[in-house]
Amino acid sequence: MDMNSDGLSASDIAQAVASRKLSALSVTEAALARIAKHDPVLNSFTDVTADRARAKAQAVDAAIASGQKAGPLAGVPFAVKNLFDVQGLATRAGSKINRDLPLSARDATLIERLEAAGAVLVGALNMGEYAYDFTGENLHDGPSRNPHDATRMTGGSSGGSGGAVGGALVPLALGSDTNGSIRVPASFCGIFGLKPTYGRLSRARSFPFVASFDHLGPFARNVADLALAYDAMQGPDADDAACTTRPTEPVVPLLAQDIGGLRVAIAGGYFQRNVFPEAVEAVARVAKALGATRTIEIPEAARARAAAYVISTTEGASLHLDRLRQRPNDFDPAVRDRLLAGAMIPAPLVDRAQKFRRWYRTQVLELFKSVDVILAPATPCVAPKLGQATFVLDGVELPVRANIGIHTQPISFIGLPVVAVPVPLEPMPIGVQIIAAPWREDIALRVAYALERMGTVSAPQPRGL
Amino acid sequence: MDMNSDGLSASDIAQAVASRKLSALSVTEAALARIAKHDPVLNSFTDVTADRARAKAQAVDAAIASGQKAGPLAGVPFAVKNLFDVQGLATRAGSKINRDLPLSARDATLIERLEAAGAVLVGALNMGEYAYDFTGENLHDGPSRNPHDATRMTGGSSGGSGGAVGGALVPLALGSDTNGSIRVPASFCGIFGLKPTYGRLSRARSFPFVASFDHLGPFARNVADLALAYDAMQGPDADDAACTTRPTEPVVPLLAQDIGGLRVAIAGGYFQRNVFPEAVEAVARVAKALGATRTIEIPEAARARAAAYVISTTEGASLHLDRLRQRPNDFDPAVRDRLLAGAMIPAPLVDRAQKFRRWYRTQVLELFKSVDVILAPATPCVAPKLGQATFVLDGVELPVRANIGIHTQPISFIGLPVVAVPVPLEPMPIGVQIIAAPWREDIALRVAYALERMGTVSAPQPRGL
Repeated sequence: MDMNSDGLSASDIAQAVASRKLSALSVTEAALARIAKHDPVLNSFTDVTADRARAKAQAVDAAIASGQKAGPLAGVPFAVKNLFDVQGLATRAGSKINRDLPLSARDATLIERLEAAGAVLVGALNMGEYAYDFTGENLHDGPSRNPHDATRMTGGSSGGSGGAVGGALVPLALGSDTNGSIRVPASFCGIFGLKPTYGRLSRARSFPFVASFDHLGPFARNVADLALAYDAMQGPDADDAACTTRPTEPVVPLLAQDIGGLRVAIAGGYFQRNVFPEAVEAVARVAKALGATRTIEIPEAARARAAAYVISTTEGASLHLDRLRQRPNDFDPAVRDRLLAGAMIPAPLVDRAQKFRRWYRTQVLELFKSVDVILAPATPCVAPKLGQATFVLDGVELPVRANIGIHTQPISFIGLPVVAVPVPLEPMPIGVQIIAAPWREDIALRVAYALERMGTVSAPQPRGL
Repeated sequence: MDMNSDGLSASDIAQAVASRKLSALSVTEAALARIAKHDPVLNSFTDVTADRARAKAQAVDAAIASGQKAGPLAGVPFAVKNLFDVQGLATRAGSKINRDLPLSARDATLIERLEAAGAVLVGALNMGEYAYDFTGENLHDGPSRNPHDATRMTGGSSGGSGGAVGGALVPLALGSDTNGSIRVPASFCGIFGLKPTYGRLSRARSFPFVASFDHLGPFARNVADLALAYDAMQGPDADDAACTTRPTEPVVPLLAQDIGGLRVAIAGGYFQRNVFPEAVEAVARVAKALGATRTIEIPEAARARAAAYVISTTEGASLHLDRLRQRPNDFDPAVRDRLLAGAMIPAPLVDRAQKFRRWYRTQVLELFKSVDVILAPATPCVAPKLGQATFVLDGVELPVRANIGIHTQPISFIGLPVVAVPVPLEPMPIGVQIIAAPWREDIALRVAYALERMGTVSAPQPRGL
């Protein structure tokens, strides 16, 4: 009886479920079937919460049948990076060690909010160990694989989130972004990702990496779905000290507003170096569609990336110090080495990085007096091959793993909101960052929406499946 | 014609000058004469600003003669640790290197405020290099010497401040306290010192050490003078980001209030270990005078001291990194070695120290729900001999220099206000810390005032001169 829900957007599903054209249960079963069919290749999921999902879907259907108002995400299947607490699971954060943690007693705030809007959690997703990763490769669980070419990386650290949405297993997923871990897999997997302003979305009951610039956010295959999920998750939460005051500012009603008055600039200098031709092409297409010709210089972006690096590795090392001492051999050796290096970085360098960070943030905020949106590559390249160790950037052979985030790191460590939009290049998509001033997710989402309506950006079908 | 102003308190001087029993100029000349006579022994002053002082004193006298209202510190000579900017001097902060700095264009805010109240700056004072010191010894300028026994330390790093007030060269001086640099010389020199709440007194135009727990504050020979100076300096200052909001809360009118209702406790555990008998005796006398019998435990005080140490040495190293690289041989080797050690401390340890600090501050604030004042030793011992390298604490031979601040460090790095009060033991005085909750300088000063009226605490005459 139910129509086929494969490939439907979150908003299509929610409308169909609300109007009882589709049951939430059938949508859930279809998602579980897609996961069963494709995840052996994609390796996006580490846990499929089938029983829980069916029970939730049935509850949604029953509520609607009894005349209750359907939530804005009624019956929409979603999954979360496995650093979100899911009741009854250990929050592994991509690690082996965390499997020994007690099972979570309560869901992360963002899961609770999506489910309160009617969405249905179907599982937890593969990720780079402890989120210290740009590849989506994981030693313990195996790599997540790109839905457009299964021999390629998804990007990371939210690799399973990118694969699951890019592969259309679910219309929505959640990830985290410290230095690019939402924007990178969005770029490689050809989907939309939102890294909100620091402090906008609650991180309560999620596993941290670098608390002062950890962000959680959604992935989707179109902008309306991204905004729908974002609106459902917004609002203060006493359980995250960084997210206690900002009121909810819904963006769904604003998406279709004209963007003609917005001042759009292209990030120059640093953001135009260290790029493959595909990244240049992607930014050029977006800029052309927006009529943007002005280039602005984000000052000292290279130092900003270095500072983000130093702070990440030392705060990460601080977080994991006891585990490094007690269970060194249970880390991925590559992650362990990075953390051990961080454990030995002298404190005065970090102190200077923090001082620089305050200066740099002030400088960048100043730029936003004369511009509303800044365009920059989300990644320097399309998805590399799995296991690829190096690439050549501007004539220099560099490690892939460390340099995928070269254009994302200088943005997140001062907490700016960014929508990563997919430019559907052939044979592989690549993302562009739409960067706005703090708390102006609305602007970045409106620009992304306009680009989508112009056909400049879109999530390609997963032809690798 | 003028009466002899030697030995007069600041309030006596201000009253005599206001009523024209004394001229500010004669008071200034007397102070300059005392400095000329005794400072060759005490070595408190690095700069005597005689011309400026005479000009200011004449201006005060002229203003009063013309019928203007005399300020509350009219004609009171004072001097400042040489890390305060003094117009026309290089702010040497006890160093050789800083002598090459440009001459200061403007006085520090606290100097401006004292002079606005009629006080007369007569000079800048010796101090430990870059304030990283508890002894008052200085390689470049020679040690400041204790006014009660010139073979002994003044304590540091505000050594000249302690010596100049303890030796009655001036009734008031300013110093700075990061880990004890006001309270230690107050203890060794037998005078009163106030380390206010972090953020209470502006640090604008002073040379920093550890910005997140640097404090400036006054020294005096009685509590009324201490409070008079404090009131004249209070109030927000846009030039110090930590001191922008707190309004002025004058304490002079409150000093004589009854303290019967205050709950006084003695710090136990850590604060009763590592002490010489003199420190035990001093705390016991103060406790007895106040009728205090309750002992409370400040939790994890030893870790607090360790954390203060780690943060101080690494932030200090960060501040001085360029100087350490460019002019290593111009540092006192002992200070350089401490800073170089700090330059190599791994950042994750500091990150953990900062996390601990937040926890510890919460714990200590909790204690103040059941107590108004906590008593603790200001130093573990009376002033050691100049050059003394070690002492024996609880049976362990320890370096003097590092351990003089053993009881002050756990208090200042969470910003609590403290009045150090002198117990006039024979042959050498020793101080006790009167510790209050944040922003309750009034309580600590009232308790100090009551103790002074009971005769328990007082600044002894400088018999070493």
